[in-house]
Amino acid sequence: MSLIIPDGGKLTNLVVPEDLQPAKRAEAARLPHLTITDYDLQWIHVLAEGWASPLTGFMREEQYLQTLHFNCLRLEDGSVVNMSVPIVLAITDSDAERLGNSDAITLSLGDGKDIAILRNPEFYSHQKEERVARSFGTTHIGQPTIERIMAMGDTLVGGDLEVLEPIRYGDGLDDFRLSPAQLRSEFERRQTDAIYAFQLRNPVHNGHALLMNDTKQRLIREGYHNPVLLLHPLGGWTKQDDVPLSVRMRQHEAVMEEGILDPESTVLAIFPSPMLYAGPTEVQWHAKARLNAGANFYIVGRDPAGMKHPERLNADGEADDLYHPEHGKAVLQMAPGLERLKIIPFRVAAYDKVAGEMSFFDPARADDFEFISGSKMRDFARNGETPPPGFMGEAAWKVIADFYRNM
Amino acid sequence: MSLIIPDGGKLTNLVVPEDLQPAKRAEAARLPHLTITDYDLQWIHVLAEGWASPLTGFMREEQYLQTLHFNCLRLEDGSVVNMSVPIVLAITDSDAERLGNSDAITLSLGDGKDIAILRNPEFYSHQKEERVARSFGTTHIGQPTIERIMAMGDTLVGGDLEVLEPIRYGDGLDDFRLSPAQLRSEFERRQTDAIYAFQLRNPVHNGHALLMNDTKQRLIREGYHNPVLLLHPLGGWTKQDDVPLSVRMRQHEAVMEEGILDPESTVLAIFPSPMLYAGPTEVQWHAKARLNAGANFYIVGRDPAGMKHPERLNADGEADDLYHPEHGKAVLQMAPGLERLKIIPFRVAAYDKVAGEMSFFDPARADDFEFISGSKMRDFARNGETPPPGFMGEAAWKVIADFYRNM
Repeated sequence: MSLIIPDGGKLTNLVVPEDLQPAKRAEAARLPHLTITDYDLQWIHVLAEGWASPLTGFMREEQYLQTLHFNCLRLEDGSVVNMSVPIVLAITDSDAERLGNSDAITLSLGDGKDIAILRNPEFYSHQKEERVARSFGTTHIGQPTIERIMAMGDTLVGGDLEVLEPIRYGDGLDDFRLSPAQLRSEFERRQTDAIYAFQLRNPVHNGHALLMNDTKQRLIREGYHNPVLLLHPLGGWTKQDDVPLSVRMRQHEAVMEEGILDPESTVLAIFPSPMLYAGPTEVQWHAKARLNAGANFYIVGRDPAGMKHPERLNADGEADDLYHPEHGKAVLQMAPGLERLKIIPFRVAAYDKVAGEMSFFDPARADDFEFISGSKMRDFARNGETPPPGFMGEAAWKVIADFYRNM
Repeated sequence: MSLIIPDGGKLTNLVVPEDLQPAKRAEAARLPHLTITDYDLQWIHVLAEGWASPLTGFMREEQYLQTLHFNCLRLEDGSVVNMSVPIVLAITDSDAERLGNSDAITLSLGDGKDIAILRNPEFYSHQKEERVARSFGTTHIGQPTIERIMAMGDTLVGGDLEVLEPIRYGDGLDDFRLSPAQLRSEFERRQTDAIYAFQLRNPVHNGHALLMNDTKQRLIREGYHNPVLLLHPLGGWTKQDDVPLSVRMRQHEAVMEEGILDPESTVLAIFPSPMLYAGPTEVQWHAKARLNAGANFYIVGRDPAGMKHPERLNADGEADDLYHPEHGKAVLQMAPGLERLKIIPFRVAAYDKVAGEMSFFDPARADDFEFISGSKMRDFARNGETPPPGFMGEAAWKVIADFYRNM
């Protein structure tokens, strides 16, 4: 069986080649400047490396409208690519006025470091209420990305990006930040014939491991010889109560060192996008980006990219899920432009008290199972308790427990 | 040039053939019943006649999700049809419980009249906040359709419809309610080679007439021999302050009798859909329905299906437009599944004080023009004043003036 990495369209690379960097840097210094945030920088990172191919910069209005209304872009050749979340740069009206006549703008961080040149800018209206309603299915300000968006400027500026050098954070994790092109090379080096991606922003417990290992066996049964797992934690902004990236990376490494996931058939890398908590709309973005990185299978579970509704209660008087837990999976399977990615629906795993390990949940003996949520894990750690044996690898649990104890 | 009516997909017809009606009626009488509203009836009308082809009844969840997220449906053959607004039936949880095991349900009006059989029902969650956010770009309850939806039941029921007889209202206007099939026959009878549709829910002033007549001339210059206008007022529910259908129809007839629109090349008919005021999302529905009725050109103006935001003010402290006035046009031109419909952007006409008639607005001599809004028209009528000569035909104005005076 031959290598079957789908091309995922043309992979854009917006980073200026090394030999041209001095000249571009000098040009950037002379152009009018716009100060961007660390959050904007994460999106520049995403754009620079081609995760959002074929985008060549922050969205212009035509792309933005297609994203909001259709979750996909029609290209000039008539083909359709998935693009479900707006990747846009919001600015204040006064910046818009100041920069309105510029052919090119230098985007720089608050500390004065120039990051990129935005060419041929297009200024258009940032209808924030409409944006959040169509992207999140709510306008509730208690949703953290909505809160962020509603505080942004009222103008958007689209345009083509030239990124002055690769984006680095200097946090000791940059080596894990492989671009889609680097991931494709790595997959080629490993002579894989099936790449299955797992998006996560939480610690890996043995239930996750079970389904990843089960997927591998399934692919082998289907005739693939060398399936490789892309274990792909999200590395951009996450909400306050999510476990920080550095802790999660240590935990993931421990899981691999303990052999719970086989290092020989696993690539651990960081996905540089910020998190939106936009449920069915965001899961398409998560899948599309991995398609661009060469994945041909994508594992999706219950309520992907979901969170609790900031206000609404369910029939039991508890915080309701913001999104219907089954919609993410359903929407992903019908999303235009993702036809080449095979979606693998997640089977729910839970702690099997009889077997003393994580097993696929069996409704016929529901009472034998215990669901250990993130907050339950947190409680174990804070109280110095250990979760039941078989829930998580010992070294992996220690990383989490230490983090919560030291908080 | 040959007749070039696009097929618009298979035209569904859900009305039971006359010879089978007695048997279906008897069956309906025996089935469990669900009481529907007059508003539901308007959607049944829309579905029954194939305006929403290829839908064969109220949406099932898979269709509903595709509509909300992608504004289009993918058919089994891989082709894509536009479908931007949910056409769904909301019921209470207690009705859902009562009917949950039925294979078929009779939908009947409050007066006991059986309307249709809903077969193979599928019950699913009505996530109302998400529905309105994604369809309207706001969740503000001051938007009248949002107010209506938020008061609906929490379950949706989809399924295939058999409509027991053609929907009639007995208001003296039923003869104007031509189905898509009837319209296609009429266009064929007229040997037209270009059908251009004009959706409206307001009186026709001479600015509208100017652009409809201008479109006709343009089509003739492009080589069409016999363009026909489908003058197609919306006949379903509209908000309180819109002019009622019966008054509008008398006004439209007066416009044709006065020769402002040529009766020889105009088909006046009623579009049975309710109004949603959903801007760029709704304008796709308005266009798609006319595509199904055989139109190949669609005229679209500023802020189609728009209204004022119930709360937000613009920079001048006036009620802001709910939607960006240019987005409807832009979204319609990029909408998947409408490629076969040629979109004709509306040129703005206003009262030209120098010429004493409605003319296309010329920004070079902006001061010569006066925009006469609906509320200004209302003020003229209430005060017994006459709008400037050339604004509207005399007989047509009399219909409007009488209506407002008698209100």
